[in-house]
Amino acid sequence: MSTSQPERAVARTQVIMQSTLALAQESGYAKLSIEAVAARAGVGKHTIYRRWPSKGLLFLDSLLSLNEPVLDFPDTGDVLADLRQQTYAAVDLLANPPWGPLYQSLVGEAQHDPAVAAGLSERFIRPQTDRTVARLKSAQDQGQVAPDFDLDLVMAILSGPLYFRLLITQEPMTHDYVDRIFEALFAGLSPRG
Amino acid sequence: MSTSQPERAVARTQVIMQSTLALAQESGYAKLSIEAVAARAGVGKHTIYRRWPSKGLLFLDSLLSLNEPVLDFPDTGDVLADLRQQTYAAVDLLANPPWGPLYQSLVGEAQHDPAVAAGLSERFIRPQTDRTVARLKSAQDQGQVAPDFDLDLVMAILSGPLYFRLLITQEPMTHDYVDRIFEALFAGLSPRG
Repeated sequence: MSTSQPERAVARTQVIMQSTLALAQESGYAKLSIEAVAARAGVGKHTIYRRWPSKGLLFLDSLLSLNEPVLDFPDTGDVLADLRQQTYAAVDLLANPPWGPLYQSLVGEAQHDPAVAAGLSERFIRPQTDRTVARLKSAQDQGQVAPDFDLDLVMAILSGPLYFRLLITQEPMTHDYVDRIFEALFAGLSPRG
Repeated sequence: MSTSQPERAVARTQVIMQSTLALAQESGYAKLSIEAVAARAGVGKHTIYRRWPSKGLLFLDSLLSLNEPVLDFPDTGDVLADLRQQTYAAVDLLANPPWGPLYQSLVGEAQHDPAVAAGLSERFIRPQTDRTVARLKSAQDQGQVAPDFDLDLVMAILSGPLYFRLLITQEPMTHDYVDRIFEALFAGLSPRG
């Protein structure tokens, strides 16, 4: 049975993205090049450049094609327990290969390439933020979160401490770290009244 | 009056670091190369490689040589007001050229080069963390911060939301953003009892 042209195009895209991730894992993102991806995928480099104008944008598509970062919330009825589980899942992803180190490289590249930063923000962070805010809004409606808590800040406040470890101090991220952050955030910094 | 050999070495180091920062600002960090720095500084590239094994480590030294990131706390007696002023100062630095974009590039490079990550963490983040923890400890002793607040988390919780904007969403950072973060953190996420 012969494959159609669109099927071959989809298959070729998959091979290019798999080659990109394989090379990034083997040699590190810094040494990744479109030439090397083309050689590994068995395509001409212009085939890649026609669709991806930069190594960073190719890497962004390849990483998001893994489909792992969906990070859906569990739904147990206890929204705060669900939020904690979802944060555990984020930490498990960020703290381990292959996804963690690849994502770290992507954020690194976003600092040098505004198109990568925009894609990361719109295609990965924005949908995650929308889901998190919707879930916290539901917690707020049920009286589990302070009624005046500024929900627009929720991603910055909950995931900021994770990114601080991942990107700045590069200390290990664990479930225990998540528990300590949750405890501090829910208690607040103010002296108890 | 002739200059001594050590004086000339110090002067040459300064010229190399100034050339590094000037080129990074003109063309962006991604295009920076040790060859270009050598040409701009009027030295041989081996002079640079002898001291800095990578472009990232040269950039780290150059940025930290600016001496701006000292971010000392003001001391008005009201430690929480002081902490807010210090966070405003951090935001002013991070949100504006030349320091902000250069620092963003440095954090980007740290994701690809473990030696840069280690240097950033030990030489910039660690001393800042020590000063912040000492100041919060004093606030805690005076009853201005909850006695059981986990001080080891203070940098992650206070600066995490700033890094989230700087590195991930790249939204503008303002004093108003700092005020909203402080309000949320000091009130806590828990429903008011």
